[in-house]
Amino acid sequence: MTNPTPQDRYSRGLARLTEVDGAAGEAVIAAMADIAPDLGKAIIEFAFGEVYTRPGLSLRDRELATIAALTALGTATPQLKVHLHGGLNVGLTREEIVETILQMAVYAGFPAALNGMFAAKEVFAAREDAA
Amino acid sequence: MTNPTPQDRYSRGLARLTEVDGAAGEAVIAAMADIAPDLGKAIIEFAFGEVYTRPGLSLRDRELATIAALTALGTATPQLKVHLHGGLNVGLTREEIVETILQMAVYAGFPAALNGMFAAKEVFAAREDAA
Amino acid sequence: MTNPTPQDRYSRGLARLTEVDGAAGEAVIAAMADIAPDLGKAIIEFAFGEVYTRPGLSLRDRELATIAALTALGTATPQLKVHLHGGLNVGLTREEIVETILQMAVYAGFPAALNGMFAAKEVFAAREDAA
Amino acid sequence: MTNPTPQDRYSRGLARLTEVDGAAGEAVIAAMADIAPDLGKAIIEFAFGEVYTRPGLSLRDRELATIAALTALGTATPQLKVHLHGGLNVGLTREEIVETILQMAVYAGFPAALNGMFAAKEVFAAREDAA
Amino acid sequence: MTNPTPQDRYSRGLARLTEVDGAAGEAVIAAMADIAPDLGKAIIEFAFGEVYTRPGLSLRDRELATIAALTALGTATPQLKVHLHGGLNVGLTREEIVETILQMAVYAGFPAALNGMFAAKEVFAAREDAA
Amino acid sequence: MTNPTPQDRYSRGLARLTEVDGAAGEAVIAAMADIAPDLGKAIIEFAFGEVYTRPGLSLRDRELATIAALTALGTATPQLKVHLHGGLNVGLTREEIVETILQMAVYAGFPAALNGMFAAKEVFAAREDAA
Repeated sequence: MTNPTPQDRYSRGLARLTEVDGAAGEAVIAAMADIAPDLGKAIIEFAFGEVYTRPGLSLRDRELATIAALTALGTATPQLKVHLHGGLNVGLTREEIVETILQMAVYAGFPAALNGMFAAKEVFAAREDAA
Repeated sequence: MTNPTPQDRYSRGLARLTEVDGAAGEAVIAAMADIAPDLGKAIIEFAFGEVYTRPGLSLRDRELATIAALTALGTATPQLKVHLHGGLNVGLTREEIVETILQMAVYAGFPAALNGMFAAKEVFAAREDAA
Repeated sequence: MTNPTPQDRYSRGLARLTEVDGAAGEAVIAAMADIAPDLGKAIIEFAFGEVYTRPGLSLRDRELATIAALTALGTATPQLKVHLHGGLNVGLTREEIVETILQMAVYAGFPAALNGMFAAKEVFAAREDAA
Repeated sequence: MTNPTPQDRYSRGLARLTEVDGAAGEAVIAAMADIAPDLGKAIIEFAFGEVYTRPGLSLRDRELATIAALTALGTATPQLKVHLHGGLNVGLTREEIVETILQMAVYAGFPAALNGMFAAKEVFAAREDAA
Repeated sequence: MTNPTPQDRYSRGLARLTEVDGAAGEAVIAAMADIAPDLGKAIIEFAFGEVYTRPGLSLRDRELATIAALTALGTATPQLKVHLHGGLNVGLTREEIVETILQMAVYAGFPAALNGMFAAKEVFAAREDAA
Repeated sequence: MTNPTPQDRYSRGLARLTEVDGAAGEAVIAAMADIAPDLGKAIIEFAFGEVYTRPGLSLRDRELATIAALTALGTATPQLKVHLHGGLNVGLTREEIVETILQMAVYAGFPAALNGMFAAKEVFAAREDAA
């Protein structure tokens, strides 16, 4: 993590958030505006401005890792849906996403995999409706 | 999941386990022999014979997903170490592994990322000692 | 785990799934058909065809264990409901189920027990409506 | 924990529950009446009659601890909402609650903090509507 | 939960703790004596004096539920070991325990089942050494 | 979160880390130096430079929240120990810490509270040895 100016961190974070998560990511930031705008700011500056702009792992790989983790945790369905959009936006195929979620049955149990798959089903359908 | 003969599931699962996790994976199966050999058998036949032999996601991507999930869960340090070996065995670089674990700070908190990094540190050192 | 033919695993798994979870279990498999049919297949073949057909623990005890675990985890409400039906289908009484869920307050906290109890309340009411 | 008479434990627990969680707490107890009244009774007698009446930590601090824990766990949204009311009832400010939830991003990840913040947003709005 | 006198709750809880968990349970209470004796007291009075003395579920079934839950959670290895002793003390067979733990692979993933099995292996060996 | 210069974030974060967690916190950063120095840097800049320097919640309250959350999660014992030191360093009393951990029995179960108490016991003893 180099030391960008604060302006840089925010602007490159916002650009990265928009690139990866699109409207779904922006909606999360907007929802924080009237209660905890600094949580939205930290997501932009730290998560997207610092972590998702790091070299060493492609955006596609980063989303694969996030989808795996959120499926396994099972406590973050809204965020999993945002990143299912994100994964598709940066190059993961539906087949790769389905495989990643299915594999979580091995590490976090079948309920985690089933619930992840229900989220994917919803996101895939939403994108077809939008197309 | 095609319908292999039972012999096929076991033998291809064992081959895959050995390819991915090497001695660390075999040690887990051996440790189950005197208490629950069928748990070891299910790991070979289901996890490795069925899931890890599926097309649609590379072995390298499968290990990346597993490392992300086990780091985030934080309840499976011994298995995380096995898969850190596994990831290196099938083509993940140390840098990619470090990036994956660091990213989990965003989704599961800094303690999860720190504990994952301590496991990686141990596995990287063990491989240097062995080399 | 003996080595049944693949056909045997599937057919005995499906029979066991139907016996235990009834329509609720079949609905889960059906929901996977258009996104990840192999996840449904793995639930039938591995979870029901291999694990739930093992000797050494009665079906009633298996459902008691599952209800305890899913209540404690707190991340699998839809699956808990399926197994609340399942437990009643294979001989657990409502009182035994209520006791199992209440006991989880000790091991996973009162919120986990309360949320499990809300799921049981819903399932008990659904069965009364259906009767 | 001194040894009150059983009547004392229940009555002082109920008084404490009403003081802290108000109508939201009483609704939880009422919801258990037809399925597991003893779970409601244990919440009154043990959680409120024994733990929340202990000296050594103020009610305000107890609610801060509970809000932090339930946000981090991510499996108890209904109970988190009850305690967001509770925290405001016993002296936490909205700012302190928002800070506590935001801080959970560090220890349990951004999704946990976001979901906690959504719960707070809902509770704050409900109290404004009621006022 | 009837309303026993405080003396009754403590004495019947201690008797139940000793019956179920034996020396391993008493060691936990003793370990709390110099830091939080009231936590030990609450385990005796609430967990054992109130919950484990309830009718409606046998002690054997209660231990089966606890072993399932603690294996699935994966965060309570010391307590799982205490209850593995407890389960054997109140009538669970080793085979039933092994089946319960193995089944958790389905609901909480293979790492949880493996770690539970390692705990069982240790407890079974300790009892053979003691015999 | 105002926009400090990068130098400010790092230096004020390091000062805050040293103030709160002392040597235990610095040891964590040092341990990351040869594997993931940027994870240590993010802990300093984000967790301590941004979150722990925010107004709106005292350092004492922040440590109380962290101790509650890490006890409830049960997956971060090393970090819990660091923050037990931290809490004592910024004004929590032993009694307040013991009360906070004991209360977690209500929200995350007795095993979580017991394991938190064992960590506190170890930290309290270490400080007595050092004094």
